[in-house]
Amino acid sequence: MHGRAFDRIGGMTSSTLLSSHHLSIHHDGSKRYVLSSTDTDLHLGDEVTIRLRAAVDAPIERILLRTCPDGEQFFAEMQIENSGNSSACNWWQAKLRLSMPLTSYRFLLFTKDGIWWYNGSGLHRHVPTDAEDFRLLADYAAPVWVRDSVFYQIFPDRFWDGDPASNVRNDEFEYQGLQSRSREWGEKQSGWPEAMVEFYGGDLPGVEQRLDYLTDLGVNAIYFNPIFTAYSNHRYDVVDYYNVDPHLGGDSALTSLRLATAERGMRFIVDIVPNHCGVEHPWFKSALQDPNAPTADYFNFHQHPDEYESWLGVRSLPKLNYRSQNLRDTVYAGSNAIFRYWLKAPYAVDGWRVDVANMLARHGKDQLEAEVWEGIRQAVKEENPSAYLLGENFFDSSQQLQGDRLDASMNYFGFANPIGYWLNCFEVNQHAEPRNVKSKVTWSTQALVDSWQASRAAIPWVIARQQFNLLGSHDTPRFINVLDHDQARNRLAVAFLLTYVGVPCIYYGDEIGMTGRDALEARNCMIWDSTQWDADLRSFYQTLIKLRRTSPALIDGGFQVLLAEENLLAYLRDTDEEQIIVIGNRGPAAHPAGLLSVEHGAISNGTVFQELFTGQTSTVMNGNLPLPELSAGVQIWLTV
Amino acid sequence: MHGRAFDRIGGMTSSTLLSSHHLSIHHDGSKRYVLSSTDTDLHLGDEVTIRLRAAVDAPIERILLRTCPDGEQFFAEMQIENSGNSSACNWWQAKLRLSMPLTSYRFLLFTKDGIWWYNGSGLHRHVPTDAEDFRLLADYAAPVWVRDSVFYQIFPDRFWDGDPASNVRNDEFEYQGLQSRSREWGEKQSGWPEAMVEFYGGDLPGVEQRLDYLTDLGVNAIYFNPIFTAYSNHRYDVVDYYNVDPHLGGDSALTSLRLATAERGMRFIVDIVPNHCGVEHPWFKSALQDPNAPTADYFNFHQHPDEYESWLGVRSLPKLNYRSQNLRDTVYAGSNAIFRYWLKAPYAVDGWRVDVANMLARHGKDQLEAEVWEGIRQAVKEENPSAYLLGENFFDSSQQLQGDRLDASMNYFGFANPIGYWLNCFEVNQHAEPRNVKSKVTWSTQALVDSWQASRAAIPWVIARQQFNLLGSHDTPRFINVLDHDQARNRLAVAFLLTYVGVPCIYYGDEIGMTGRDALEARNCMIWDSTQWDADLRSFYQTLIKLRRTSPALIDGGFQVLLAEENLLAYLRDTDEEQIIVIGNRGPAAHPAGLLSVEHGAISNGTVFQELFTGQTSTVMNGNLPLPELSAGVQIWLTV
Repeated sequence: MHGRAFDRIGGMTSSTLLSSHHLSIHHDGSKRYVLSSTDTDLHLGDEVTIRLRAAVDAPIERILLRTCPDGEQFFAEMQIENSGNSSACNWWQAKLRLSMPLTSYRFLLFTKDGIWWYNGSGLHRHVPTDAEDFRLLADYAAPVWVRDSVFYQIFPDRFWDGDPASNVRNDEFEYQGLQSRSREWGEKQSGWPEAMVEFYGGDLPGVEQRLDYLTDLGVNAIYFNPIFTAYSNHRYDVVDYYNVDPHLGGDSALTSLRLATAERGMRFIVDIVPNHCGVEHPWFKSALQDPNAPTADYFNFHQHPDEYESWLGVRSLPKLNYRSQNLRDTVYAGSNAIFRYWLKAPYAVDGWRVDVANMLARHGKDQLEAEVWEGIRQAVKEENPSAYLLGENFFDSSQQLQGDRLDASMNYFGFANPIGYWLNCFEVNQHAEPRNVKSKVTWSTQALVDSWQASRAAIPWVIARQQFNLLGSHDTPRFINVLDHDQARNRLAVAFLLTYVGVPCIYYGDEIGMTGRDALEARNCMIWDSTQWDADLRSFYQTLIKLRRTSPALIDGGFQVLLAEENLLAYLRDTDEEQIIVIGNRGPAAHPAGLLSVEHGAISNGTVFQELFTGQTSTVMNGNLPLPELSAGVQIWLTV
Repeated sequence: MHGRAFDRIGGMTSSTLLSSHHLSIHHDGSKRYVLSSTDTDLHLGDEVTIRLRAAVDAPIERILLRTCPDGEQFFAEMQIENSGNSSACNWWQAKLRLSMPLTSYRFLLFTKDGIWWYNGSGLHRHVPTDAEDFRLLADYAAPVWVRDSVFYQIFPDRFWDGDPASNVRNDEFEYQGLQSRSREWGEKQSGWPEAMVEFYGGDLPGVEQRLDYLTDLGVNAIYFNPIFTAYSNHRYDVVDYYNVDPHLGGDSALTSLRLATAERGMRFIVDIVPNHCGVEHPWFKSALQDPNAPTADYFNFHQHPDEYESWLGVRSLPKLNYRSQNLRDTVYAGSNAIFRYWLKAPYAVDGWRVDVANMLARHGKDQLEAEVWEGIRQAVKEENPSAYLLGENFFDSSQQLQGDRLDASMNYFGFANPIGYWLNCFEVNQHAEPRNVKSKVTWSTQALVDSWQASRAAIPWVIARQQFNLLGSHDTPRFINVLDHDQARNRLAVAFLLTYVGVPCIYYGDEIGMTGRDALEARNCMIWDSTQWDADLRSFYQTLIKLRRTSPALIDGGFQVLLAEENLLAYLRDTDEEQIIVIGNRGPAAHPAGLLSVEHGAISNGTVFQELFTGQTSTVMNGNLPLPELSAGVQIWLTV
């Protein structure tokens, strides 16, 4: 091997200062670092063993584990485990008893160069607040099945038309001054607003007919955009929460799909829209007609009937008013409330994707999200403790991810956006001026690493590992367009999606190379003519999906950044039995062959790795993994 | 002037990169940076102007103000104010309407070297969470009177014996196997536990007799340790929440003190102990005797009567059980509840210092602090919207300081502890092993700055400015002992106390140089023989107290660190009409004369400053303030 070393930040020296060994300090919430007597979830009263690893020669004099039971700070002395001379690291450990639903903790290191606090955002010289402490949840009902799931998002009208008899017909209805239109599969959509009532006939029987395709791809869970009755093709303007839209096959099609997916061990979750309803919903029509209607207080009229609260001012989507107890009963609290109804047999959906979860029950002076979310969670988990309660939130959703509200959020903030910024450019968008503000300056790799870390540090690991990671959705351009069609960068992003902490979701058609420059084009019809597919890309997806569903390190492993330099990012996923190193090069230039320092990842000399796509092997020597040239794109090295 | 420059981190260069100008970027919540149309508190619906300043030549292309109303991200374009060519900085501004009780915001800067986020913890390359956003409160009932208050803490038994007739007598009672003892003023205390029932006769009439002393010192508010009936001299083991201890003069003494202090425009707050009561309290005695007693559910018996929840396991302090609605009614909710009773005439205390606020209503699986604190706040503010609701919390109390719980906490975490770490050594203490763990390595000035900043960044400015800053209390060694009797460092600490963001509190006797190596000695009797006083120190206090009570920059000003190097810390307090620069040198060596860069503080050339203690003047030239030699200790420079 020759060439320059990879380890620009990772190399350890023989210095006696911790600052030379700080990258070797590692803890996260995965099972190497939090030991419990059972493999199941943690419960109140359980005692766990908290472990932290550090380089054998890191000049650490003592470590205290800091907790704050019932609000009073408490320090426990950590001990070094006796792990023999050949160990690649020292393991420090201390016991911790879970007395509260949420236990936060951090570490205090006494070293030759002074004290350091270590928390979810790393090492700090100063005294941090508790905001980035590590967190454990007790008696938290986790949807365990998502841990080895790979999701696939389907926009129902655009996946496959299984029953043409149910299709929307031309002029079948008028909606907001537009006549419904039936379009041919694959035909180009009109622009907004006409596109809203253009229907291609996709339906639930169509999905059922294509389950073999999903099984072949390797995914085992589906996220459906709304399926309840509505006038637009996106169906976020729901008019009946209690019926599957007849144009999608109706309730019986959902029952049938439930049986068919269950046979394959496949799960699915459905979109629910509790923030607003469609302007044509009977609740709203009654409220408009009569200020004393039973559903009048479901809405917030500033002046009846003309001025009412709506989603971002869009008048066709009147916002539901959670000051109303009747509304709460209807949506989640009542025994047959919407959130409960579809979780029951025969539909038994496996969870909910909650639309506009960021704004739900927030009304200016009345910020009711805490009580409403706790009510929703209670309802959902009463029906099915394993239901996956996923919320849409493009922004920092950490307040919703502390164990008492959501199980996960759509991880634009902590995953997709930072990758986009790194692989193309930093940009922000909004529904108002100024729109689409971009930076011309390349975003650093460290900014990506720090963004990911800040997001993980704010939430318990048990939540981070089930965060709903994605690259794009029906609300964004396709990621290949975000990347200006750079194929190498796209594969790098897909590899991150399938190997990062959390649960991956693939947006339908991304796997075959479909493009779409905006949210409208992103909803184009699925292409079923395989000659139009990017078969290599699909094969790349298949390989990674299979890996994600079967690899212990990806299902249960920890996460540590090994290297972040100009165009390179390398990270480790690790359990005791498996270690995986993912190395991405955003290019465009290839990175020459060289040595990747892995000593701070506690990877022993002599460990043999094999690259996933090429089958090449390499053996760790002197704390380094020799690597071949790395073209723009990704290498994935697994212990063999 | 000669000698080396002060500005090791502060100097700006002619570089076109923002990273060379980053110290000139400044915003905080003070009135230079948040403009409202009124001088009063902010209300829902108000529009404020948010201002950010930056060096004139900082290469900023645009700035967006980022908010998240009802959970949806929104960016507003900021504009540069037209402030003439001679301005020492550019001011950027945008309007912001307050639609929620708590509005958080941060800034997004587009510059020649890429984007930067700017929030309460500074500039960041990565996307931060919302945790350190700046925050504004609307319709928050602020205790405005604290803003120009300087508090003085009095431990009632040890300040002055105004009425010997009320003194506890020898063997007047037995408590926990100990006989009460009457001691001579100034006599040495026994050790624990005997010291607990040694009484020196201090009382409320004694305080009233010494009000001239307080007025002469310059303080205008008092914080009293508990005054309600109890058996120990600290009275945290209260047995009657509805009566002032007869040994302190009883209720009539409090009424008298209320009148006497009101005449002087002096305020006082009182200690309340809602987390636990004394083991001799009738509530607990009844509960012990009868599991069905009306007050039995005020406590949490794991096994009646022997095992019950208590404060940190101290059996003489049974913990109150806030699962009990009856207890809530008694403590705060009922019309004559304890929290309300003493706020009413004739006592009309000006607020509460809440003991063990960190643990209140927290019981393992039941973490009830949100609802209980909101109930307490509602009760207190219903009685007096200007009451100061202050909580004891040695740790990160930011969750309690968002406008819906406490008005302030005793600021060990964000003020006193970091100063102690910087001026002596980093240490942590607890009520269990390992105790008194210290670091031998000197703590850096940057660690002090970052600790302060992390603490401020987590809370709204309106709260930060009324945080209860202190150096020590009845629970700590006296600060002079923490500093190993280093007089220069002590003055430096006192100067920080009187000039930092927040409300200062002086622990009785600190101003005359009393010492005390632990919490017991810290409760020694006040020395009234002025020949034993450190008169220079007292004069130093008087000068700073007067400054703190009258200086616009200290009452209303912003805060910016100008310089943090090995042993020096310089910061700016600023309003439009006044700028104050505080420069501390922890020594021991003097710092030679030199230039302090103040350009990044937007201080104009030609500005004349005068030093508070020496009267020397100095004029800003070329962005620098020429400074004379700085001995260990402090200089305070004020615009004249």
